[in-house]
Amino acid sequence: MIPAQPWLKKVQWDEHGLVPVIAQEAATGDILMFAWMNREALAKTVELGEAVYWSRSRKKLWHKGEESGHVQKVLEIRLDCDEDVVLLKVEQAGGIACHTGRHSCFFQKFEDGDWNSVEPVLQDPDTIYTNPKKK
Amino acid sequence: MIPAQPWLKKVQWDEHGLVPVIAQEAATGDILMFAWMNREALAKTVELGEAVYWSRSRKKLWHKGEESGHVQKVLEIRLDCDEDVVLLKVEQAGGIACHTGRHSCFFQKFEDGDWNSVEPVLQDPDTIYTNPKKK
Repeated sequence: MIPAQPWLKKVQWDEHGLVPVIAQEAATGDILMFAWMNREALAKTVELGEAVYWSRSRKKLWHKGEESGHVQKVLEIRLDCDEDVVLLKVEQAGGIACHTGRHSCFFQKFEDGDWNSVEPVLQDPDTIYTNPKKK
Repeated sequence: MIPAQPWLKKVQWDEHGLVPVIAQEAATGDILMFAWMNREALAKTVELGEAVYWSRSRKKLWHKGEESGHVQKVLEIRLDCDEDVVLLKVEQAGGIACHTGRHSCFFQKFEDGDWNSVEPVLQDPDTIYTNPKKK
């Protein structure tokens, strides 16, 4: 069943019923990752106080950290002026948001005409997941 | 003509040839806005050192600030692990990124089951644009 609370209706869901979501670390301001939510994911995020996304590749709800333990405690939720983008301010368990074992997914920097990895791997991804292909 | 540099090819453009872009204020860490780019917009952004987006509603390149003067000087460009999201670290001219006259587009906060505007309007939007419908 699709949740139908008024605050959920205010969000401008796209033609796939999704909204882009930016996760920002509250304490540092670092942008950790970018993902998508459907109505159920956003309702679940509010209910749990932890980030729940919609995995477009696996086509199911994805409680971030369900396998890795790298859950995101949600401290604040914001909506933009067009009401079609959500911003989460979170506390990142383990300090690792990225499936590569890095703090943030945005570790490739444009320099000298190419993308270079500039952030360290904090944990070997093979030790994060039972199935390293999942994230 | 579509630019074809190798660094542009590394980006995973979606089925519409677009990539989501997050603009973050470098000095404060504040997330200012979210928009989209096509190949030409990203190439132009690198060329000018100022943010150039693709306006999905107007279906044309949008040099942010071209009307308002609120240009974004790009200090750094990042790409995420899946290579399908771009992060810009910018200096925001006038301190105003949002067409509502606010610092950031993310001024609606989820509180007590609803979205509340919690950031001040710094400039009357009518004084920002010749045509206030544009942004």
